[in-house]
Amino acid sequence: MATPKRQRREPGGPESPDSVGWTHARSVRLADANNPLPLEIGGNIAPVDVEYETYGRLSAARDNAILVCHALSGDAHVAGWDADAQQTGRTWRLRKPGWWDAVVGPGKALDTDRYFVVCSNVLGSCYGTTGPASTDPASGRPYGLDFPLVTVSDWVQLQARLLDFLGVGELHAVLGGSLGGQQAIEWALAFPERVRKCIVLAASARLSAQGLGFNAVGRHAVMHDPDFHGGQYYGRSAPEDGLAAARMLAHITYLSGKGMDAKFGRRIQEGARARSGFDAEFQVESYLDHQGRAFVERFDANSYLYITRAMDYYDAATRWGGGDLVQACSRVRAQLLTVSFSSDWLYPPDECREFALAVMRNRIPVTYVNVHSDYGHDAFLVEAATVERVLRGFLTVAPPVTSVSRCARRGGCLCR
Amino acid sequence: MATPKRQRREPGGPESPDSVGWTHARSVRLADANNPLPLEIGGNIAPVDVEYETYGRLSAARDNAILVCHALSGDAHVAGWDADAQQTGRTWRLRKPGWWDAVVGPGKALDTDRYFVVCSNVLGSCYGTTGPASTDPASGRPYGLDFPLVTVSDWVQLQARLLDFLGVGELHAVLGGSLGGQQAIEWALAFPERVRKCIVLAASARLSAQGLGFNAVGRHAVMHDPDFHGGQYYGRSAPEDGLAAARMLAHITYLSGKGMDAKFGRRIQEGARARSGFDAEFQVESYLDHQGRAFVERFDANSYLYITRAMDYYDAATRWGGGDLVQACSRVRAQLLTVSFSSDWLYPPDECREFALAVMRNRIPVTYVNVHSDYGHDAFLVEAATVERVLRGFLTVAPPVTSVSRCARRGGCLCR
Repeated sequence: MATPKRQRREPGGPESPDSVGWTHARSVRLADANNPLPLEIGGNIAPVDVEYETYGRLSAARDNAILVCHALSGDAHVAGWDADAQQTGRTWRLRKPGWWDAVVGPGKALDTDRYFVVCSNVLGSCYGTTGPASTDPASGRPYGLDFPLVTVSDWVQLQARLLDFLGVGELHAVLGGSLGGQQAIEWALAFPERVRKCIVLAASARLSAQGLGFNAVGRHAVMHDPDFHGGQYYGRSAPEDGLAAARMLAHITYLSGKGMDAKFGRRIQEGARARSGFDAEFQVESYLDHQGRAFVERFDANSYLYITRAMDYYDAATRWGGGDLVQACSRVRAQLLTVSFSSDWLYPPDECREFALAVMRNRIPVTYVNVHSDYGHDAFLVEAATVERVLRGFLTVAPPVTSVSRCARRGGCLCR
Repeated sequence: MATPKRQRREPGGPESPDSVGWTHARSVRLADANNPLPLEIGGNIAPVDVEYETYGRLSAARDNAILVCHALSGDAHVAGWDADAQQTGRTWRLRKPGWWDAVVGPGKALDTDRYFVVCSNVLGSCYGTTGPASTDPASGRPYGLDFPLVTVSDWVQLQARLLDFLGVGELHAVLGGSLGGQQAIEWALAFPERVRKCIVLAASARLSAQGLGFNAVGRHAVMHDPDFHGGQYYGRSAPEDGLAAARMLAHITYLSGKGMDAKFGRRIQEGARARSGFDAEFQVESYLDHQGRAFVERFDANSYLYITRAMDYYDAATRWGGGDLVQACSRVRAQLLTVSFSSDWLYPPDECREFALAVMRNRIPVTYVNVHSDYGHDAFLVEAATVERVLRGFLTVAPPVTSVSRCARRGGCLCR
């Protein structure tokens, strides 16, 4: 197949030696009427098709697989350049490589010369895995809000099926940022025997009340859009204004106040007239406007509802420890790395550290790194050089030989 | 007139000795065709009627007046119980006293036995002062978006007209929180000779990029509501869903993350079924939902647009110092008190402190207090006991006799 026309040719482009190059997503049916997927909240779902990508090769010993879990609006296209972007209408992928291309590729932290890297799109999404826009076998029309409620746990169970299908037993590592980090946590708790290393970036064991509130406002905007029609808007106008508002709002939570001041301050957008009314005139307004408009081009409003609800519902302590996070974390067998970012206020350092501490209280080795950054929650993507360095170190070191013992230090120690 | 039926009879009710009791708002025309109000951004407006309340009596020397400035969704009803609430349809006032009743009344910090306290509703609002819902003399119909853009400066100019009307020359003090605090700043800069004491709570000299972003999302929600009709929705359905979303969002910015965790955590609303779908089930969702619904009962969507825009536009440095806040603050002649709240992230302590520093760099006395609180931006209302104590002290002390000199201390000093 000819390569798509317009592509960046700068370093990191598809021909770059550290790029995985052109990629093709694959799809596999992992649940059908004979083998439906049981869901955490109740019921089953079938069929379930899963879109996924892999980079590198599974070793003969099948011991080099790394599972990457994507965040809220992410997809299976982690690295490289989507060779099918034009045909599938995912044209935004023509302009940039996969969402974590900075860390996945030959010689990078997730070295595809060494590891077999897998990422799949979550159940309920709109990027190839079965979701609210898929046909409901019961009605013959798109599910819409008849799609069942799905959870982080369901996603992990489905990923386990995918790994079975790919012939992967134990993972060398599972990792992800934000909602992807919560999937990594769930992996360490649900399948302790299948995870050697677990890396959780910019994520805690449960979303805060503030985070719940922001998600609620976003969904309010979507569901009160006059084009929402109870979720059955397929084939006609989608609730774009509501989804754009939800994304604009969410985007603010991905940045830090300090970062926004540095990036935009109170500067007026080029071409805009200052103090002219209610159109976007500050740069920050114009930026958020753009983010909102770009998002509705590529995301399904119902998927936004389902995935934010899964984010709301995830609570590792409730799921595995009867409400006690330390008890839940007693299940962990993986070596664990938790990375927080100093200016992240969606999953703030304190809350990330709380998870690390809960693991440590079980005398299970854990490495906790708080990266200083003004990029807020987005830092797990933006601070690529730092993240790359931290991941590389953790993925390549041998398991620790010392066990964790009670720390005698006062003050700055994580054990406090 | 008979007092309204249903009222709280608990301490602080209308008969309480520390309450200003039953109140009646008054209205006065402060601009007409012969004497229109010039506006900062351009043009004039007339007529302008202003709703205001006063408590206490102006002394014979006319030297005991205190002007209170209200915040975004506030009104002139600062203290006491609105005797006209039933007739005017402002029925929510039947359930509670004025918005700052905790600090205004006999024996309180703003002691109405001692001071003549004045508060007026801002231009563009919907509580009796001329605003977008008022009749545009040019068209004979409600202004809607034909209402001119108004600014904090315009509000202050109009308040000055009100004080002239009331026979008040110099103010003993001007004060306010949030957007009311910015009016207090503007008073100190625009009328330095008319202000003896200026108290700025939970406000800085300009809104941050993050704050601009939140306002933009709120307005986006209002203006994309199908009932908005370009602002000409009067007499038919108002854009309630959009305004509710804007308020829900804004409300999150008034609280702190820690405060929300303490107040709501991840608890499920009584009567709601956990993990049942997209209706409000977490307490925080239910709370925000209620806040949104209650707000649309009492506020006008166009006023929300105009007042948030005034909040966006205010920048003391640009208005009075050519962009230099220190230069702008050289105009200050008042004794100044700035109070920030540790968990406020809408006008964070750092930014409040920046204003105090700019005044201090002019060797003008300033008192800066950072109140430790988990109540976020709302703390200026919620931490009433602390605020009361701070205000009382500052309002009653004599002017300082020492001048500010360069500080030799390293570390914690404000002069750094």
